[in-house]
Amino acid sequence: MHLSEITHPNQLHGLSIRQLQQIAKQIREKHLQTVAATGGHLGPGLGVVELTLGLYQTLDLDRDKVIWDVGHQAYPHKLITGRYHDFHTLRQKDGVAGYLKRCENKFDHFGAGHASTSISAALGMALARDLKGEEFKAVAVIGDGALTGGMALEAINHAGHLPKTNLLVVLNDNEMSISPNVGAIPRYLNKMRLSPPVQFLTDNIEEQLKNIPFVGDELERITEGMKRLAVSKVGAVFEELGFTYMGPVDGHNLEELIATFKQAHQITGPVLVHVATTKGKGYEMAEKDQVGYHAQNPFNVATGKAIPSNKPKPPAYAKVFSHTLVKLAEQNPKIVGITAAMATGTGLDKLQAKLPDQYIDVGIAEQHAVTVAAGLACEGMRPVAAIYSTFLQRAYDQIIHDVCIQNLPVFFCLDRAGIVGADGPTHQGMYDIAYLRCIPNIVVMAPKDEAEMQRMTVTGIEYTDGPIAMRFPRGSGHGVPLMEEGWETLEIGKGEILRQGDDVLILGYGTMVYPGMQAAEILSEHGIEATVINARFVKPLDTDLILPLAEKIGRVVTLEEGCLMGGFGSAVAEALLDADVVVPVKRFGVPDVLVDHATPDQSKATLGLTSQQIAENILHAFFKKQVAAV
Amino acid sequence: MHLSEITHPNQLHGLSIRQLQQIAKQIREKHLQTVAATGGHLGPGLGVVELTLGLYQTLDLDRDKVIWDVGHQAYPHKLITGRYHDFHTLRQKDGVAGYLKRCENKFDHFGAGHASTSISAALGMALARDLKGEEFKAVAVIGDGALTGGMALEAINHAGHLPKTNLLVVLNDNEMSISPNVGAIPRYLNKMRLSPPVQFLTDNIEEQLKNIPFVGDELERITEGMKRLAVSKVGAVFEELGFTYMGPVDGHNLEELIATFKQAHQITGPVLVHVATTKGKGYEMAEKDQVGYHAQNPFNVATGKAIPSNKPKPPAYAKVFSHTLVKLAEQNPKIVGITAAMATGTGLDKLQAKLPDQYIDVGIAEQHAVTVAAGLACEGMRPVAAIYSTFLQRAYDQIIHDVCIQNLPVFFCLDRAGIVGADGPTHQGMYDIAYLRCIPNIVVMAPKDEAEMQRMTVTGIEYTDGPIAMRFPRGSGHGVPLMEEGWETLEIGKGEILRQGDDVLILGYGTMVYPGMQAAEILSEHGIEATVINARFVKPLDTDLILPLAEKIGRVVTLEEGCLMGGFGSAVAEALLDADVVVPVKRFGVPDVLVDHATPDQSKATLGLTSQQIAENILHAFFKKQVAAV
Repeated sequence: MHLSEITHPNQLHGLSIRQLQQIAKQIREKHLQTVAATGGHLGPGLGVVELTLGLYQTLDLDRDKVIWDVGHQAYPHKLITGRYHDFHTLRQKDGVAGYLKRCENKFDHFGAGHASTSISAALGMALARDLKGEEFKAVAVIGDGALTGGMALEAINHAGHLPKTNLLVVLNDNEMSISPNVGAIPRYLNKMRLSPPVQFLTDNIEEQLKNIPFVGDELERITEGMKRLAVSKVGAVFEELGFTYMGPVDGHNLEELIATFKQAHQITGPVLVHVATTKGKGYEMAEKDQVGYHAQNPFNVATGKAIPSNKPKPPAYAKVFSHTLVKLAEQNPKIVGITAAMATGTGLDKLQAKLPDQYIDVGIAEQHAVTVAAGLACEGMRPVAAIYSTFLQRAYDQIIHDVCIQNLPVFFCLDRAGIVGADGPTHQGMYDIAYLRCIPNIVVMAPKDEAEMQRMTVTGIEYTDGPIAMRFPRGSGHGVPLMEEGWETLEIGKGEILRQGDDVLILGYGTMVYPGMQAAEILSEHGIEATVINARFVKPLDTDLILPLAEKIGRVVTLEEGCLMGGFGSAVAEALLDADVVVPVKRFGVPDVLVDHATPDQSKATLGLTSQQIAENILHAFFKKQVAAV
Repeated sequence: MHLSEITHPNQLHGLSIRQLQQIAKQIREKHLQTVAATGGHLGPGLGVVELTLGLYQTLDLDRDKVIWDVGHQAYPHKLITGRYHDFHTLRQKDGVAGYLKRCENKFDHFGAGHASTSISAALGMALARDLKGEEFKAVAVIGDGALTGGMALEAINHAGHLPKTNLLVVLNDNEMSISPNVGAIPRYLNKMRLSPPVQFLTDNIEEQLKNIPFVGDELERITEGMKRLAVSKVGAVFEELGFTYMGPVDGHNLEELIATFKQAHQITGPVLVHVATTKGKGYEMAEKDQVGYHAQNPFNVATGKAIPSNKPKPPAYAKVFSHTLVKLAEQNPKIVGITAAMATGTGLDKLQAKLPDQYIDVGIAEQHAVTVAAGLACEGMRPVAAIYSTFLQRAYDQIIHDVCIQNLPVFFCLDRAGIVGADGPTHQGMYDIAYLRCIPNIVVMAPKDEAEMQRMTVTGIEYTDGPIAMRFPRGSGHGVPLMEEGWETLEIGKGEILRQGDDVLILGYGTMVYPGMQAAEILSEHGIEATVINARFVKPLDTDLILPLAEKIGRVVTLEEGCLMGGFGSAVAEALLDADVVVPVKRFGVPDVLVDHATPDQSKATLGLTSQQIAENILHAFFKKQVAAV
């Protein structure tokens, strides 16, 4: 059987180890070739090929449910659940998603994109199963990195307290999150990886003892005693927390995996199978550089090198941010950069390399990251919490309760704010304007380009009156000239006028300032002259600047790359109405829908956020009479 | 020395155990009498009197920093840090706060109100200390309940990885959160409580061995071996996670506490001292009924009974909710109520008593609670996540990522939404309208009174198209007639007209509908006739009803008990502007400030939210000419 013939994972049932190894090889080839062409996650999937096949051979996938944490390691799962022939569309608009989605496939039982949710979801399903009197296996596959996330530990605490609730947690221990893992739990797991697989051995002994007739009733006592002895060496933490621990198992040995999973399915209550895998397994380049090949842009399989883009791009916002922060931190020893396991993504790896004392990686633990920052701020440090917009959602209460209520000067730097492209709905940075601006005390800002981001970075560092947040987008800047140092701070709460005109007032926030300027140019071709303001701050909003102009011009347009509900345009509307400036306001941004994976340009076109669309809609809304047709 | 003479905790330094015991007695008396008079938290503080005194005798509080988790157990701390003479103002407007606030006292190093933040904050301070080259002790005092919160476990994971960072975690193990604890971690702690204090013994042996000359270099090897042996019995989990574990210590034995803390201060790296305390210690009624005396309204010290209120109050919203949910759950076995360690507060204890299979307490773990609910929803159950507005902030990403993106029918019931009174800023339910309505797929509603809450409860249960949230306030309902069963569902997204008039359109949401009606009556006395709408849903907003009326009447007022930034009024403004209904809108709600502790009526008056204030402001805003003076 060839991989291409598998449309249902139960087709694996009859296969021999040798046949499974063939399928494993085919999965790796397809996986590697596809990601090399489309870009996507490479190392995570390559590491769990045997884990996936071994696990699925022991399950009835018509009934049993496997929940893959994060989902970025589920490409092998996708390839054996009917998506082989579409797999070349990976991460493309209307193609196969890069993460899991319930609506994409019936075997995707729980969508994800963020880490550490799988045990909670699987436990919820297991509890429902038992309430309904049904029978199926609920399995969570979670990485060692994701296990440092608080909610996974909350789930362990809960599941470990339910000795009758069958739940299998497969710990995919590859010793990495994106970067090498941080924390006592990964270190503990590593210690166990270096130990012999004791639980496995004792159970073998148990089997042997059963064949000796004279042991009789003593069996349980003896084996229990042996297990306890074993447990004091490996798995003690999980056993103490109510789980039956099994492992570590070689995650690339199908025989061992299948035997272990079969055993695990016989045990009542929560079971944790500790599987030792190698990230990037089977592709030498990825095994050697596990950080670099976690996820990739299109690359040449033979050389492992990225396929150069046709036209050179300006430096990415993240890169400019990283560079600027390092420069500032060199001058100011109070600056401490904090990441939650995203050193490379946030660019804080550069800070780590240059000033390791001023760098903290807390693991996949955004809540803790924010409150550590609060603690640092109490002591007069300048903590910079560099967390993607979508991941900062994890620390919402900490932002409110630990930072803003206490008015502590933490500087939040939200990368990937706005439309993120191929990663899809779980990663879109859509809500931060709305969820931050409603909190008292915080300053909320966004730069129009990468040069202004440099000034906002120094502004955030210099501002010590309370918390301050800066959002910036994924991807390249505009290629504007950058300064190497000596950036001037911006005045808090002050916008700038970029263009003047009497017909319409366009207020742009962050990434939408340039499209606003371009839209103004298009309007000008139709004889409509716009004033364009770069708002810079949504909180405090520059009402001194905006209100008189809005009153004078009488037509207002707001532009933002974020949810319209409660966002920047909403803030402008509030300010106008509070000041009795009753004028029409047209808000452009992301309507109340989820934005699917696609290129950012495709998404913006779908959402009506190109300059051309904005200009046309402004003409339609305000100038129908003046302009016959566009 | 009498407690009343202590204004600085360092005054404890010279005192003998006997003198400390005297102070302990005086603290208990003052604590008990004050809370009996003012209401507040009783059991938590009474349980940590010796812990506080013992710890503080071993610290230099001019340098060292103690971070109290949650803060509700810090009344003894308040009484020895200069607040004895003001303590009778506890939880009163402008008086001593019920939780900790940095702005209240220099010994309150980190404010709190929510659980599980202390280790992160203390670790942040410890990291800052080491970066600055300073020397002080950073101590977190955390309850066993709070230790089930994910962020505390994230902090343990991080701290356990930093062997050179001195940090003392004092685990105040009283075997309770508000209710008896849930989970494998509390069970594990309980197991240790039943074991002898081994670490303490081995260290004594270490001392003794040091006095024997021939041991020499072998000492370390021997004691280490003994410790490891001990560790396999108690504290293994913490030791494996990089902490030095000490305990359990009798939390009411000052000698033992002081000796242990002194030892702990000598150890490099993270140390956890496990202190076994009795919640409510020293007040018999509270020791016997630890749930009931966790927090109290004013009561008679001699009898322990609540002082009856002068006028009988209508039943509280929480009580009506609980009753209704139990009734519905009896009819529908798919309903499962989920609480995060707030069984009594949410009223889910009634569900637990009646239908224990349909009740889940996950511990202090809001993130996990929401994703368990998502898992239950996947399996066709009707999960009801009953979480206070302020605590649901903890699960914000789970609401977005696990529930709303997947459009799963989870029913969120947010008690304590709006102004909460004496608990102050950390507990105010101010942000939920703003933070929920910006998320796609979710329905967001609020009832005008407790009878409508019953109908919304059945509406939430019956609605299976996606997530739905209902907010309701702390405290008593309006005393309207209630139905025992047979409630009718409400149509999703439909409001109701309560009063008609041509001069102004008043849109009330939730608790502000009645004040809106009363304001309309006052306006009517001035010849101004208002149409009043009970919006019921902020999402989807009933634009069919609102837009034509707003256009016709031309003056709009919105009323809500929540933050104005991004809230209900903002939603109305958005809808009007999107539909080209350009009319003045006056929004009433909570402006962009923190609301301090006070009675709800006091807070509402401060915020201008009484009917009289609303009416006056409407007259001032819209009818200055018509009405000379009010």
